[in-house]
Amino acid sequence: MSQSFRPVIAFMTDFGTGDGDVGVMKGVALGITPDAQIVDITHDIAPQNVASAAWILATAYRYFPKGTVYICVVDPGVGSTRRAVTVHAGDWYFVGPDNGLFSYVLAQQPVHEVVVASNPNYHLRQVSSTFHGRDIFTPVGAHIARGTALAELGPRVDPATLRRIDLELARREGARIEARIVHVDNFGNLITGIPLSMVPDLFSSPSVRLTFPERQITIAERRRFFSEGPDGSESGDETQPFIYGDSSGYVGVALRNGNAARLLGVGYNAALTLIIDPQRIV
Amino acid sequence: MSQSFRPVIAFMTDFGTGDGDVGVMKGVALGITPDAQIVDITHDIAPQNVASAAWILATAYRYFPKGTVYICVVDPGVGSTRRAVTVHAGDWYFVGPDNGLFSYVLAQQPVHEVVVASNPNYHLRQVSSTFHGRDIFTPVGAHIARGTALAELGPRVDPATLRRIDLELARREGARIEARIVHVDNFGNLITGIPLSMVPDLFSSPSVRLTFPERQITIAERRRFFSEGPDGSESGDETQPFIYGDSSGYVGVALRNGNAARLLGVGYNAALTLIIDPQRIV
Amino acid sequence: MSQSFRPVIAFMTDFGTGDGDVGVMKGVALGITPDAQIVDITHDIAPQNVASAAWILATAYRYFPKGTVYICVVDPGVGSTRRAVTVHAGDWYFVGPDNGLFSYVLAQQPVHEVVVASNPNYHLRQVSSTFHGRDIFTPVGAHIARGTALAELGPRVDPATLRRIDLELARREGARIEARIVHVDNFGNLITGIPLSMVPDLFSSPSVRLTFPERQITIAERRRFFSEGPDGSESGDETQPFIYGDSSGYVGVALRNGNAARLLGVGYNAALTLIIDPQRIV
Repeated sequence: MSQSFRPVIAFMTDFGTGDGDVGVMKGVALGITPDAQIVDITHDIAPQNVASAAWILATAYRYFPKGTVYICVVDPGVGSTRRAVTVHAGDWYFVGPDNGLFSYVLAQQPVHEVVVASNPNYHLRQVSSTFHGRDIFTPVGAHIARGTALAELGPRVDPATLRRIDLELARREGARIEARIVHVDNFGNLITGIPLSMVPDLFSSPSVRLTFPERQITIAERRRFFSEGPDGSESGDETQPFIYGDSSGYVGVALRNGNAARLLGVGYNAALTLIIDPQRIV
Repeated sequence: MSQSFRPVIAFMTDFGTGDGDVGVMKGVALGITPDAQIVDITHDIAPQNVASAAWILATAYRYFPKGTVYICVVDPGVGSTRRAVTVHAGDWYFVGPDNGLFSYVLAQQPVHEVVVASNPNYHLRQVSSTFHGRDIFTPVGAHIARGTALAELGPRVDPATLRRIDLELARREGARIEARIVHVDNFGNLITGIPLSMVPDLFSSPSVRLTFPERQITIAERRRFFSEGPDGSESGDETQPFIYGDSSGYVGVALRNGNAARLLGVGYNAALTLIIDPQRIV
Repeated sequence: MSQSFRPVIAFMTDFGTGDGDVGVMKGVALGITPDAQIVDITHDIAPQNVASAAWILATAYRYFPKGTVYICVVDPGVGSTRRAVTVHAGDWYFVGPDNGLFSYVLAQQPVHEVVVASNPNYHLRQVSSTFHGRDIFTPVGAHIARGTALAELGPRVDPATLRRIDLELARREGARIEARIVHVDNFGNLITGIPLSMVPDLFSSPSVRLTFPERQITIAERRRFFSEGPDGSESGDETQPFIYGDSSGYVGVALRNGNAARLLGVGYNAALTLIIDPQRIV
């Protein structure tokens, strides 16, 4: 196992931080792996929104050290027969329910090993039917962080059997791209499902047009950074929403010093159309 | 002192995380105990709600490693003559104001030692009258975490002198149980004050009825896990609230993939009646 | 470099905790400095409010161990030509955009060295134009925490060239002080911009009067702690707002067991007048 001398455990849940549940999971982890470095990715995933959690994990995981163990619990099926799985993919380990949370990781990284974490020796002695984050996922992840081989945790399974969610967040046909908003960030920036790699011509094309059909809104301005003005200077108009390349690797819509989501009345999952060089297609 | 090689300090407050105060307490702790593992239980306790904090601590503390030091600051009496106390109970240490925060712990664990943490050598040099979390509780807790004996921190007192809150959150008479909602979690699940140990017949009884008299709502469905259907399958109705056993060890009311608190209009402290096998008592 | 054996990195941003960005920064930091102690000051700074962030940092930084590296990212100019700077002042290191965030620190501490962190060897290989917290500030701060000399990070600059914000939050003329609310805390306490050091007579004067002219509200009661009564007892009236000395070192207005901001309808940046011993000036 490739890791730093202090193993990193990164948590991501939809538990919020008001209930003590996240703290309890960390207590469990430290009981097993006292020298772990524990990091929160976020606990504010919209309740039970597996697709949103999968996307946020995809924007985050590459930035953590090799050997990091991700414990991800967005788990509407807790207590049912859905499997608890552990995935060793790329340089990292992922623990969570088999419900599609790791779909991006599986698509982007070489998958070395997948096991169903069913060995009760690596669970808490008492397993509830409503909090597997505490009773199964955290102890399993903490054991991986301290070096337990995946094969100890349960039977190896074919990665092809893992549940996956639809990753085609945007579809391009020529100059026209159909997509949805996949995330609204803390600043009200609207992140679309359009990977920047799909639009190499976003900034080089003479013009673009991004439309939210349900709101009858069209945005044509582009900026490379938030405070850029229309002429590339640093005196950007504060009242006009603009298109930019978000640091997540996707196309975004923002407002300088303002909240684009609030101004435009656009939220998670809103449909949008991006047309690159509109004159080519009208 | 029984502890792992990196002492764990767990914080719980009603400070929120927007003011920097929680960060400041951690800075103080690391100045005293640089190798501490610091964990947040929660900082979102409703302002000055000692009963709620005590309950959340009770659901959490057993899951932390032996030797963990809990620094708990929900402290409406800060600056007054209320005592700052340190409790060694079970395998853990608890530091905070003497206002009932540790009532469950005191009832559930053997109490080894209680001291009033009045020795100023273990406080910050300047003690404010409004932020003892920073100036007293954290330095005291950090000193315990690094191995200071409780006797150094101040005079030993009789545990019987500690303030306690009412722990009888539910009262059962035959088939009828009167209780209140003690917590609403991040999913809108309503946690009642009825310990599962009080209702061993909750799932075996032919029928049950949980009523919120102020809302004229009655719930009769029971489930062992959130996605269970009426027939034990995994196709549960999403629109009917149901009774379940919460992982905190108390009876809860939930809605599959929904927010029971919002649907029912029921919140913290709402009165309820649970009748197990209604035919037996009507 | 004076530091504990586990270097402390303290983060402060306006990113919130819902997007995963804070987690990503910690992942980057641990990849560079695996044994760092990572602490959050807060991530809930009002979006792009540099003045608020600077004030919160000022109330917090002294409480952290010597050698702590503060990574502060409230950065409306991200991607533009504003400089990324590193400041060694007092016993601490500060990394962030050159936009005034460190104004209080620069005014309060001896400044040993300032560098522009422009050396790309200490940035991530790919630097985005919208997330320098991840791509520049965190790797730079983590390298400092592991002992890299500031001179390695980029050219030394004159501290006088750093941008500073107006620190005169209150102005006293005789008995009359004009100020504004600089922070509303989690309890709804209103923190004014009046340093306690400016009003040594706050509690000794026979009477005081604090007015919010826009709300036509006047407060004359003073208390040393929240639960103090008018007579110094611990039976304080719960319905009257009062003046107190906040633990931040500034004059505050609070309500016992209540939310003064909500009761008074007063918020961030509200103007106020404090008159000490009104009879002397009327």
